Amino acid sequence: MTEVSRFRRSVTEHRAAVAELMGRVAARSETLPLRAALGRVLAEDVAAPIDLPPFDNSQMDGYAVRAADLASSEAGARVGLAVARPIAAGTDPAPLAPGTAAPIMTGAALPDGAELVVPIEAAVPETFPAFVVDVGVEYDAGSRVSLPGIGSVGASGAGQYVRRAGSDVGVGARVMAAGERVSARHVGLAAALGLTELPVVAPLRALVIATGEEIVDPGTAPEQGLAPGQIYESNSAMLVAALAEAGAEAVGLRVTSDAPEVFWAQLGEAARRHTPDLILTSGGISAGAYEVVKLALAEAGVEFGAVAMQPGGPQGAGVIELDGHGVPVVAFPGNPVSSYVSFEMFVRPVLAERFGAAPRRRQRARLKAETDSPPGKLQLRRARLTDVAADPAELPSVELLGGPGSHLMYPLAAANALVLVEESTTHVGSGAMVDTLVIGE
Amino acid sequence: MTEVSRFRRSVTEHRAAVAELMGRVAARSETLPLRAALGRVLAEDVAAPIDLPPFDNSQMDGYAVRAADLASSEAGARVGLAVARPIAAGTDPAPLAPGTAAPIMTGAALPDGAELVVPIEAAVPETFPAFVVDVGVEYDAGSRVSLPGIGSVGASGAGQYVRRAGSDVGVGARVMAAGERVSARHVGLAAALGLTELPVVAPLRALVIATGEEIVDPGTAPEQGLAPGQIYESNSAMLVAALAEAGAEAVGLRVTSDAPEVFWAQLGEAARRHTPDLILTSGGISAGAYEVVKLALAEAGVEFGAVAMQPGGPQGAGVIELDGHGVPVVAFPGNPVSSYVSFEMFVRPVLAERFGAAPRRRQRARLKAETDSPPGKLQLRRARLTDVAADPAELPSVELLGGPGSHLMYPLAAANALVLVEESTTHVGSGAMVDTLVIGE
Repeated sequence: MTEVSRFRRSVTEHRAAVAELMGRVAARSETLPLRAALGRVLAEDVAAPIDLPPFDNSQMDGYAVRAADLASSEAGARVGLAVARPIAAGTDPAPLAPGTAAPIMTGAALPDGAELVVPIEAAVPETFPAFVVDVGVEYDAGSRVSLPGIGSVGASGAGQYVRRAGSDVGVGARVMAAGERVSARHVGLAAALGLTELPVVAPLRALVIATGEEIVDPGTAPEQGLAPGQIYESNSAMLVAALAEAGAEAVGLRVTSDAPEVFWAQLGEAARRHTPDLILTSGGISAGAYEVVKLALAEAGVEFGAVAMQPGGPQGAGVIELDGHGVPVVAFPGNPVSSYVSFEMFVRPVLAERFGAAPRRRQRARLKAETDSPPGKLQLRRARLTDVAADPAELPSVELLGGPGSHLMYPLAAANALVLVEESTTHVGSGAMVDTLVIGE
Repeated sequence: MTEVSRFRRSVTEHRAAVAELMGRVAARSETLPLRAALGRVLAEDVAAPIDLPPFDNSQMDGYAVRAADLASSEAGARVGLAVARPIAAGTDPAPLAPGTAAPIMTGAALPDGAELVVPIEAAVPETFPAFVVDVGVEYDAGSRVSLPGIGSVGASGAGQYVRRAGSDVGVGARVMAAGERVSARHVGLAAALGLTELPVVAPLRALVIATGEEIVDPGTAPEQGLAPGQIYESNSAMLVAALAEAGAEAVGLRVTSDAPEVFWAQLGEAARRHTPDLILTSGGISAGAYEVVKLALAEAGVEFGAVAMQPGGPQGAGVIELDGHGVPVVAFPGNPVSSYVSFEMFVRPVLAERFGAAPRRRQRARLKAETDSPPGKLQLRRARLTDVAADPAELPSVELLGGPGSHLMYPLAAANALVLVEESTTHVGSGAMVDTLVIGE
């Protein structure tokens, strides 16, 4: 049997080791149309190519006027002005003549000379003339309107109800920062700036390899079913989906031979096809006799050992050479729950840090019923947090699902959190506060 | 000018009205491969087609034995047994002869007759014989192993280290419930059960119509730029993206004419092409002169009025007939921030309730600096919550971004929360606790 180097690490140490390995993968960027960029993380800062608003415009439906025309009266007295040609949104208005008031729509450009907008509700009459309302009616140069003078309710002075060009965003300003996730609100801002594309972090490419002579593709003809001793292989589908949830592009591979040379041949072929940035394996690394991943990869420089956590104790990590490139490999144990929590503990944090995955939220919560925990190991228990939204002032409670057995998949699917019980803790009382990692709704 | 019915409603009342309108849209389901179902909401309960595990198997690398063979000794004394043919994972083992111990790998099927597994660490020697390790070596019928008797450390009795068939999931049991979101963990459970597809809620189809004579497609040749008075239209891109974030399929349409007959013609053509379940409009519904949405839709039965919120006061809602089908229409004001908060307040809750959107989380937080709020209106302010993950025991603080102006898009893009200030509140002091709706990271 091949002699392999064996490490003993805390969760923190192994996470740092995996992060260091993945540090050799350069984050790539790509420029995508807004719709495709949605949900991705920005690779670069974005600067405003124009002012927002692009021009001074009216915040209200009302009348655009010169301040002097409202200030010439006694303070508070109303002023009668001739109604100028109305200004619809989207038009380039003529300058405003002194002594006139131009009906103006919300968002329409303020004419040269105008300094404030008096809202329609402060005008007498409190409606626009018919020629404004009905497009078919000719402009009536004889209309007049009564507006409040400056100092009155409805007219406080120059700048009132005017949105200045650049008051939201000035041209050249940084409006989005590298690392921000593109939300619908970012898409809105980008579109308002006339942008049609955004530079985003490209997804990490991963290859997931599940191993075991007992595993069978879930797509195997259902009428045939499982032979005695066989199980449907779920780790590759689960880890590919977990990678997709974290923004990575992954493909799965099943290796059902325990022969290292077959493992290498299948790995090499898949790697040539998919050129992965990262390889994740599940299974084949514990102390048993037929540990194909360990047998194959230890010779290639991957280290194996134990991490002080339960489930997920056996772990491996290293870099292998594939077609002249060093590719990081992170090796998980084969029990489905062990594989999943290993992903959450060691890989997802790096994906959040550097490759655009949403960060996982931690949540303090009150444990509903007491539990024991092995000494010297970080224990991760599947659990359900109560609905935090229900009473936002209260800290939620959390209930353990099922036992610690790492083959129990139903409690994993039903969980929305992992309860983290520290290495030094061997018992947690009912009602005690615990740390949780939120992994679902 | 067309006379239109005018409602006055609270946010709660208008949300209920929109929910009632959208109640006429039947939720559809579709069956998708696991990978495509990821992130969708289950349309039906899912039952287990097989037991999990499918057969009794070993939880450890060790020796499968009969309880009687370990019990026949004095309590605690070790027992020597002949080593039987080893059992690899994936094989169908022969029954275990009395007086023998079969080397067994983790996950391998327990042979008939075996009742417990003694882990390798409790055996003497603490390794498997060479014929187990090296596939090329012949089975050696003469090997013997010393195991602890029942009562000793390492042998507690029948059932030890045995995973019983069906102990995770029994055939026929409900393993996933309608309404649950398909996570990587659900994909894992489904695959383990041999399932390759899941029944999920089909996305709502929506048509988003932005209006305004001033609006220009952001994709307009950039060297040409904006003409005076024009703005890049961002509401349709933003709402289409917001619908996508909420799991809906949406297309956008720009109507740049203020003529109702042009609005109807473009709406009709788009509706025939996309057969929307829901139509959202932005703009054209306030008190101004050229309010195309109101002019066009009021005659078709859509109601317009005021909702006691800021921004987003003007609102419309109703059902229009399109090719003999009643299609719900929800009409938002045209300012981008008003449009966005209207979507969060009125449409997204229904999408979360019935069409597979992730529910928004509410979070209590401490307001960093005092602010005023208009009386009689629910005020929604763009804000940033501090990182909740940083110190999970503390409630986060929240900082308002920019002023209440509904044209300010930069603070909207930068926000990760909306602070909700109740109708009856006109001032919130610095350090006061406020409710927030979490809308981003």
